[in-house]
Amino acid sequence: MKRLSTTARDFESAFAALLDEARETTARVDAAVAAIIADVRAHGDAALLDLTARYDRWVPGSAAALRVTSTEIDAADAAINPELRAALNLAADRIEAFHRAQLPRDIEYTDAAGLTLGMRWGALDAVGIYVPGGKAAYPSSVLMNAIPARAAGVGRIAMAVPTPDGVLNPLVLAAARRAGVTEVWRIGGAQAVAALAWGTASIAPVDRITGPGNAYVAEAKRQVFGRVGIDSIAGPSEVVVIADAANDPRHVAVDLLAQAEHDESAQSILITPDAALADAVAAAVLAELRHLPRAAIAGESWQRHGAIILVRDLDEAAALTNRLAPEHLQLMVANPRALLAQVRHAGAAFLGRYCPEAVGDYVAGPNHVLPTGRTARFASGLSVFDFLKRTTWVEADAAALAAVGPAAVALGEAEGLTAHARSVALRLGG
Amino acid sequence: MKRLSTTARDFESAFAALLDEARETTARVDAAVAAIIADVRAHGDAALLDLTARYDRWVPGSAAALRVTSTEIDAADAAINPELRAALNLAADRIEAFHRAQLPRDIEYTDAAGLTLGMRWGALDAVGIYVPGGKAAYPSSVLMNAIPARAAGVGRIAMAVPTPDGVLNPLVLAAARRAGVTEVWRIGGAQAVAALAWGTASIAPVDRITGPGNAYVAEAKRQVFGRVGIDSIAGPSEVVVIADAANDPRHVAVDLLAQAEHDESAQSILITPDAALADAVAAAVLAELRHLPRAAIAGESWQRHGAIILVRDLDEAAALTNRLAPEHLQLMVANPRALLAQVRHAGAAFLGRYCPEAVGDYVAGPNHVLPTGRTARFASGLSVFDFLKRTTWVEADAAALAAVGPAAVALGEAEGLTAHARSVALRLGG
Repeated sequence: MKRLSTTARDFESAFAALLDEARETTARVDAAVAAIIADVRAHGDAALLDLTARYDRWVPGSAAALRVTSTEIDAADAAINPELRAALNLAADRIEAFHRAQLPRDIEYTDAAGLTLGMRWGALDAVGIYVPGGKAAYPSSVLMNAIPARAAGVGRIAMAVPTPDGVLNPLVLAAARRAGVTEVWRIGGAQAVAALAWGTASIAPVDRITGPGNAYVAEAKRQVFGRVGIDSIAGPSEVVVIADAANDPRHVAVDLLAQAEHDESAQSILITPDAALADAVAAAVLAELRHLPRAAIAGESWQRHGAIILVRDLDEAAALTNRLAPEHLQLMVANPRALLAQVRHAGAAFLGRYCPEAVGDYVAGPNHVLPTGRTARFASGLSVFDFLKRTTWVEADAAALAAVGPAAVALGEAEGLTAHARSVALRLGG
Repeated sequence: MKRLSTTARDFESAFAALLDEARETTARVDAAVAAIIADVRAHGDAALLDLTARYDRWVPGSAAALRVTSTEIDAADAAINPELRAALNLAADRIEAFHRAQLPRDIEYTDAAGLTLGMRWGALDAVGIYVPGGKAAYPSSVLMNAIPARAAGVGRIAMAVPTPDGVLNPLVLAAARRAGVTEVWRIGGAQAVAALAWGTASIAPVDRITGPGNAYVAEAKRQVFGRVGIDSIAGPSEVVVIADAANDPRHVAVDLLAQAEHDESAQSILITPDAALADAVAAAVLAELRHLPRAAIAGESWQRHGAIILVRDLDEAAALTNRLAPEHLQLMVANPRALLAQVRHAGAAFLGRYCPEAVGDYVAGPNHVLPTGRTARFASGLSVFDFLKRTTWVEADAAALAAVGPAAVALGEAEGLTAHARSVALRLGG
């Protein structure tokens, strides 16, 4: 863990180093992924059976066996404990409510020139959701990817989840059922992305693919981009906690560790104007680490990428936050709304002393798929907007064309696009 | 030009071939672009001077000479003819009005559990706009890229435009001035994209880069993606015209040619239920071609990629359009609104017999940067949304946390993320 202070002489260089820190090196798997995609395009289901047997240590009997049946989904759902099902339902209801609130309105107006202009939002026909298998098969991730698609009005939601050694996570299936997933496929890796993008005899192609995955999945998404839409490629996760003196250091410490336990590349940063809190949190992190089953991971993340930055005041905290553009931002201060107003760049913010980021990971309602690695400068979290697209439209009659057409003719001619100009001029009687 | 009919026995295979037609082969310039980006990152302005001298046949005296001065911009603006300036202003005013109408509203609500949830839109700090140089330096493209950024509230809009042989297009500068561009740089190619993404001593880095360009520019955008945001990589342009019997064949023919004159890879498709109109348009295209300075380009596009599809009725026309998902769609029928309601996938639609697509290219108001190559299934035209991003936020007090926290604890434990669960449980007094 690094300790920085804005009053230190070397602060600017130390902070710049923090900003530029590369927390992850991506394996180069371009060629391997290109070969897998070519295989799936050429051999369809047969390639899927082959690749699944090879990578997932599970031999599907036939292409039909790749699809999880509704009986299997019902059985998985019935097997989970009632408390967990209630939690899943509460989370799903809240995520659905928030994403429905995002739904935008169409535009239509007729202007002084007599043209009617419009913009219409429409849902994608079909989307694919990738869910990592094994340990990292998170039901919350299923909810966060599928519910926005469903709220947007997408009719077909195909989920791909690898089942290493044939094992399916019942909670993931229960989440898929609750979220409105319409098909579940037991496939993973680059082959799953290829199948969703290009289709096979069994799996119809989709229009967009979202969801987290390993280096193969990320590279496959990059390679099918253009054929289908994709979400952004997520990097390691991060949190900035801005906390004043009036906080329980233990709360702050556990919040920092909740980020750190994701993986060794995660980053947790505390920014505080209070030196005593900084010291207390640093000590509390070490004490709290002992309670964590994932202490090895969280400890390494904190040691390698963690930071505590002492600032003169909260204005300075906001300014540094804008340079960090963090994925998650906790504002544990007396007046969090005033501080939020100073923040321009953050994926998601959590206001108050009783709003740890984990609330947002599961049950608050906003999406937990968020821009990482300073991309909150220009990118946003997953939302209904990822599953909608716009068509603009214009309606003109002869009078409207007479009002604006001559300008189009002038510009078309100036750009040397004669047919453009002529298509307007002919209708103006020219 | 191909002629298809939905009543023909081979229609399905012929239409599938049309859908799968690759109209463009992209040159592989990955390695060359990677070298240019590395050069700009390592040597900054010096690399820009060097690469500009090499590729643009113009030797800037110093890094300062790369920036177009406000005096030069004023002089260019003063030199253009008043009719053209009026046309540019009319276009800019209309584009601005439509994009301002797109501006979305923030969300904020407190729900039954006592949590306050919000979503706030904010503008990007800085964007880069790439404008191709030479013949293809289109002032309309400057307006269409810069005005949405300005309407979104972007403070800094840096434009890069190569000036082959040192020549600047005055109309492009006048458009930049009117559109609110804040800096103009005489640089192009992959080096311009690299400079905008990474910054040099002279050019501050931006957060997102938009605008069309050649294979080098497109590949450079791909390679800097993640460091900055980019717009989609545009493919060759296309139009679908749906026309009934009551149209002047010459109008339809010129509309098809307006698309075809862009380049040899462009595609123009007429869909009509009227065989007589189909024949008349086919003849009119050949007749109209003779009037065009760009007849060679338009003729080749029409010959290689043009199509006339005879359908039984307009319902069938709408169904085929949804499979084509065209960039541009003209609805030259008696009731275009009813037909538009049947269309799910199109970048931009033009309704009525007096609304050729060229109106939308210049003066209607909606953007002319649109999804090509069937990507309208999932992508949208350029808009203020490309220059905005969202921050979601949640505010909770102890009572609100008590309402939703236990579900978060249950889910965090089920996912094996103990610190997540503990960050909530501690505050619940657990």
